[in-house]
Amino acid sequence: MISSAANSKVKRLVALSQKAKMRQKEQCFVVEGVRMVCEAPSDWIQEVYVSESFFHRYEKEENAEIRCILNHYDYEVIIDTVFQKVSDTQSPQGILCVLSMPHYELTKSIERWGVDSKKTPLLVLLEDLQDPGNVGTILRAGEGAGVDGIIMTQQTADIFNPKTIRATMGSIYRVPFYIVDSLAETIMQLRKKGMCVYAAHLDDSVDYDVPDYTQPTAFLIGNEGNGLCRKTAECATQYIKIPMEGQVESLNAAMASTILLYEAARQKRKKIII
Amino acid sequence: MISSAANSKVKRLVALSQKAKMRQKEQCFVVEGVRMVCEAPSDWIQEVYVSESFFHRYEKEENAEIRCILNHYDYEVIIDTVFQKVSDTQSPQGILCVLSMPHYELTKSIERWGVDSKKTPLLVLLEDLQDPGNVGTILRAGEGAGVDGIIMTQQTADIFNPKTIRATMGSIYRVPFYIVDSLAETIMQLRKKGMCVYAAHLDDSVDYDVPDYTQPTAFLIGNEGNGLCRKTAECATQYIKIPMEGQVESLNAAMASTILLYEAARQKRKKIII
Repeated sequence: MISSAANSKVKRLVALSQKAKMRQKEQCFVVEGVRMVCEAPSDWIQEVYVSESFFHRYEKEENAEIRCILNHYDYEVIIDTVFQKVSDTQSPQGILCVLSMPHYELTKSIERWGVDSKKTPLLVLLEDLQDPGNVGTILRAGEGAGVDGIIMTQQTADIFNPKTIRATMGSIYRVPFYIVDSLAETIMQLRKKGMCVYAAHLDDSVDYDVPDYTQPTAFLIGNEGNGLCRKTAECATQYIKIPMEGQVESLNAAMASTILLYEAARQKRKKIII
Repeated sequence: MISSAANSKVKRLVALSQKAKMRQKEQCFVVEGVRMVCEAPSDWIQEVYVSESFFHRYEKEENAEIRCILNHYDYEVIIDTVFQKVSDTQSPQGILCVLSMPHYELTKSIERWGVDSKKTPLLVLLEDLQDPGNVGTILRAGEGAGVDGIIMTQQTADIFNPKTIRATMGSIYRVPFYIVDSLAETIMQLRKKGMCVYAAHLDDSVDYDVPDYTQPTAFLIGNEGNGLCRKTAECATQYIKIPMEGQVESLNAAMASTILLYEAARQKRKKIII
């Protein structure tokens, strides 16, 4: 049992939770809570930790999923006061694990999206989004709407930030994501493969429900404060806008993305029905 | 100039920011930041406060809106360290005001919605939503989609909570809202006036894009954790669901509301075009 905050494993967990650099260096990240641990792909799991009170509770209780994890993996018990220091939440559930970062290859995926005739691809491209909650919410809404991947710039909020991960509600395990140096370059690669890239933009835009999203589609979403940078927006196939009543200038990035993704999902369902 | 946190006005501001009971008793609330203060309806404004550094900055700078507020209202200057204690944010902009609570009469509004033939009403009904950010976001998305009002239970997160207000981005000034004792009763009143009430629900639901929302429409949204209570859901005209791909069970309440509201707005636009 680990009982000191000075323990080297505890220090590493804290660093992995708080520092993107540390996560990059070690190529792993921390997820917390029963649901997030139980849903984690087994080949991503490196280490499992439980709090002392969690350990005692689950010695008695029957929870098949948790039992399966605790029987299958070596785990260490941390006393509650130290676990609280490691945890990112005010009232920790008492279980967390260290996971290997997944790696998806964009070039291969683009090839696949270009030829897969069974499913027309749907993508989201994020430029420099700053709010981890927005990025996580977009992954979650994206999975719900059936996206094939999320592509984001290096300057976008870290997808392995505990706040982002929590907001994904597990979608981080299932939606492929790609971090790129130049969104402009990626857009050109996608367009070469016949994909239409729609930029949520204000000038000369058509209403977002006009284009046909049953064709290969990517939505380009800009930074919360500044929107899309001109150079990136100019690479898009078409500008679209979400019409606003009242005095609302724009919706937040996560809401706008959700509306666009569900419009694409709606069009695809309708097409199948017709 | 107010220089002490023990000043009675400062104490009142802190209490109004932090305590719903105090806001109810005094029938007023606090908004913060340049945009929120400038957009506030002038007949709601009771008191204006600025921080010392804000005061000195705007003595020199020219900002027509702020100048207008500072010329028009008596304001008091609070030294920065004390202003920080009053503020709800980490880096306060340095201006806040106390506003009277608006009062909208539901019975009158229902009458109006029932007879106004120019605009078919669109409403949102919130049952016991707990997250102030969700409530604020729904007001903002609601204004953007053209809602006529938001009706919520007493147990819903306080609309005058500083977090809710911030998330509305000013929509709190423009979207009428109503707090009711019994949502079931309100639903029956709305239905009597010919309004269809759609409950976001799982059992026996049709896809959300099937019903005709160009008719008088209300969306009923349940609590984040538990969904709608059975008694309330049973009052609805129809159950609807947002189809989910992948392993996503549901979207968060604000996202779901946004999708529904923008589907209604989309149908209304289409109808006008046709």
